[in-house]
Amino acid sequence: MLPPNLPARIQDLPPVRARFCLGVERFLLHKLALPLQGRHVVLACSAGSDSLALLLIMHCLASRLNLAITVAHLDHSLRPESIRESHELAQLCSRLNRPVVSGCCNVGRYARKSGIGLEEAGRVLRYRFLSGVRHKVGADYLFTAHHADDLAEDVLMRLIRGVGWPALSGMAAWDPGRCLVRPLLHTPKNELRDFLRAIDVSWSEDAGNTDPAFTRNRIRNTLIPLLTQENPRFSESITRLHDQGTEDASFFATQITPLLEQARLEDHFLQSSLLSSLHTALRLRLYKAVLDDLGAGQTLHDTLRRLDHARQQGRTGTTFQFPGEKTAVVRADGVHFCGPKGFPTKR
Amino acid sequence: MLPPNLPARIQDLPPVRARFCLGVERFLLHKLALPLQGRHVVLACSAGSDSLALLLIMHCLASRLNLAITVAHLDHSLRPESIRESHELAQLCSRLNRPVVSGCCNVGRYARKSGIGLEEAGRVLRYRFLSGVRHKVGADYLFTAHHADDLAEDVLMRLIRGVGWPALSGMAAWDPGRCLVRPLLHTPKNELRDFLRAIDVSWSEDAGNTDPAFTRNRIRNTLIPLLTQENPRFSESITRLHDQGTEDASFFATQITPLLEQARLEDHFLQSSLLSSLHTALRLRLYKAVLDDLGAGQTLHDTLRRLDHARQQGRTGTTFQFPGEKTAVVRADGVHFCGPKGFPTKR
Repeated sequence: MLPPNLPARIQDLPPVRARFCLGVERFLLHKLALPLQGRHVVLACSAGSDSLALLLIMHCLASRLNLAITVAHLDHSLRPESIRESHELAQLCSRLNRPVVSGCCNVGRYARKSGIGLEEAGRVLRYRFLSGVRHKVGADYLFTAHHADDLAEDVLMRLIRGVGWPALSGMAAWDPGRCLVRPLLHTPKNELRDFLRAIDVSWSEDAGNTDPAFTRNRIRNTLIPLLTQENPRFSESITRLHDQGTEDASFFATQITPLLEQARLEDHFLQSSLLSSLHTALRLRLYKAVLDDLGAGQTLHDTLRRLDHARQQGRTGTTFQFPGEKTAVVRADGVHFCGPKGFPTKR
Repeated sequence: MLPPNLPARIQDLPPVRARFCLGVERFLLHKLALPLQGRHVVLACSAGSDSLALLLIMHCLASRLNLAITVAHLDHSLRPESIRESHELAQLCSRLNRPVVSGCCNVGRYARKSGIGLEEAGRVLRYRFLSGVRHKVGADYLFTAHHADDLAEDVLMRLIRGVGWPALSGMAAWDPGRCLVRPLLHTPKNELRDFLRAIDVSWSEDAGNTDPAFTRNRIRNTLIPLLTQENPRFSESITRLHDQGTEDASFFATQITPLLEQARLEDHFLQSSLLSSLHTALRLRLYKAVLDDLGAGQTLHDTLRRLDHARQQGRTGTTFQFPGEKTAVVRADGVHFCGPKGFPTKR
């Protein structure tokens, strides 16, 4: 299965492939501005093309960046061929001289036990395993292989669900809270496969990726092709939107974070005088930030609007319920937010 | 064709239909905060369901709002039945005792002459005619029948083209520059048809709305149904996004407009000290506002990013070309923008 020669540095690659790897490096160093020299990264790997490409790209960049790499692999036990695939990945890592930490989980059983879908269960167990590996080996970052096609699907799913801006622009390329990095998020999947073909590395196809029982597969296999027919550069439209969303998220954080910190000091109370001085665009985002600060539970935008309306009309005493047992009460001098009983604040 | 009784006031409607009309009134008075009492509006009408519904809704609200209504109708001469349809619309308006101003144009010929598509040609001629009627009769507003389904199509077309935020959230419900109002923008098309059925008014179907040669029809007839399958309340997701986009457009205007006015006084020069003090999210929007101020021509976001990069790297003398013969030059003390030769500013 493995070719006799595997590249070890970008100098071993044909120029076009070396430039491709340097594009990923540029994304990490310049767009995300991540300090990488001398760091240790955990790569989340399956036997699919995306994560094999991530592994080989980072392997080729490792000497330039003085990176230590640990491969983390979770066998989801969802398909009969998964044992063979785990074995092949281990062989590849051994050839590349990169340590692997493997794990095994039963997604189906966990989904049934928790009463959640297979997709959600897989995600929970995967991140639990991967962040466990990162802690165990003391790595600085966790790298996943999400690429530009995943990003486009994510934006579509968020548009369908009715997610607001800037979250609509898709998953973050750099999530400091989880030390999670997505180095390939602006790279189209077909370029990852071209790279693997060029260095003679084969991969496994996950038959689950075509099953139309999953929303994500219907989006991937039906919607995205239709959108790409309308604009062959649709993927670029999405990465550009993602750039703008990342900037806007950072901008709104500069506006909202100091106000949230003040609200924390005042038991999650927002003064009328402050609220009236803010533009609606900031006021609604501030409500949401305070509610998020009080614990988990998705905040419905329509409820935030009704809350704001009640406040403007001075309907003192009106109480709004939010998922996660959180409430907001309109008072004469402002709005008071409360978390689940006994947990008025999460910190 | 016309029913023996047509409603003249909302009191003549069944309660559910009266509430429906009051929903449109609320959208105009509260969401858009438009002064309407005693105003004169021009309604853009064809023989299709959307604009007939607009006409009858506004007709029923007219006495409450003390509104004068003029109907404007343009025969596009694209279909053989258009003469009959114009005649039927004139009959309806006569029954409602509302004056009609009719016009006729040859969209096909104009499209060939100007080298643009039929859709674009129709849009240009239509707005030219409608705004001409508004001026002629001295009306305050021009109302068009764009509805929530049109809005969803518009958002999808913008997503495909790669439009940034907040423009991505779709056409404005209130465009002060053109005195243009879209009272039905948050009302789904099926509710407009239900309303017409309830008052026994029939309409013409435009066969051109199913022709898959038009991007908009492919989006309407293929993409939107797929998205609605994933979320039956997709239309609400879009109107919520539209609300947020409207608020964010207003918020960004509060941040950018004073800076643009300053730039105008300084011959469209932006000082380094100002630019460095702004967050990237505002800086890129300021570049775009200054370029828009210098004349027509779509600004490519990627060029704005390259301009900003050159400025940050101090690449003095670097010049960037923008569509519409506009340029930006990086100088040691800032960035200087120029419009087409001989027209350094548009005002």
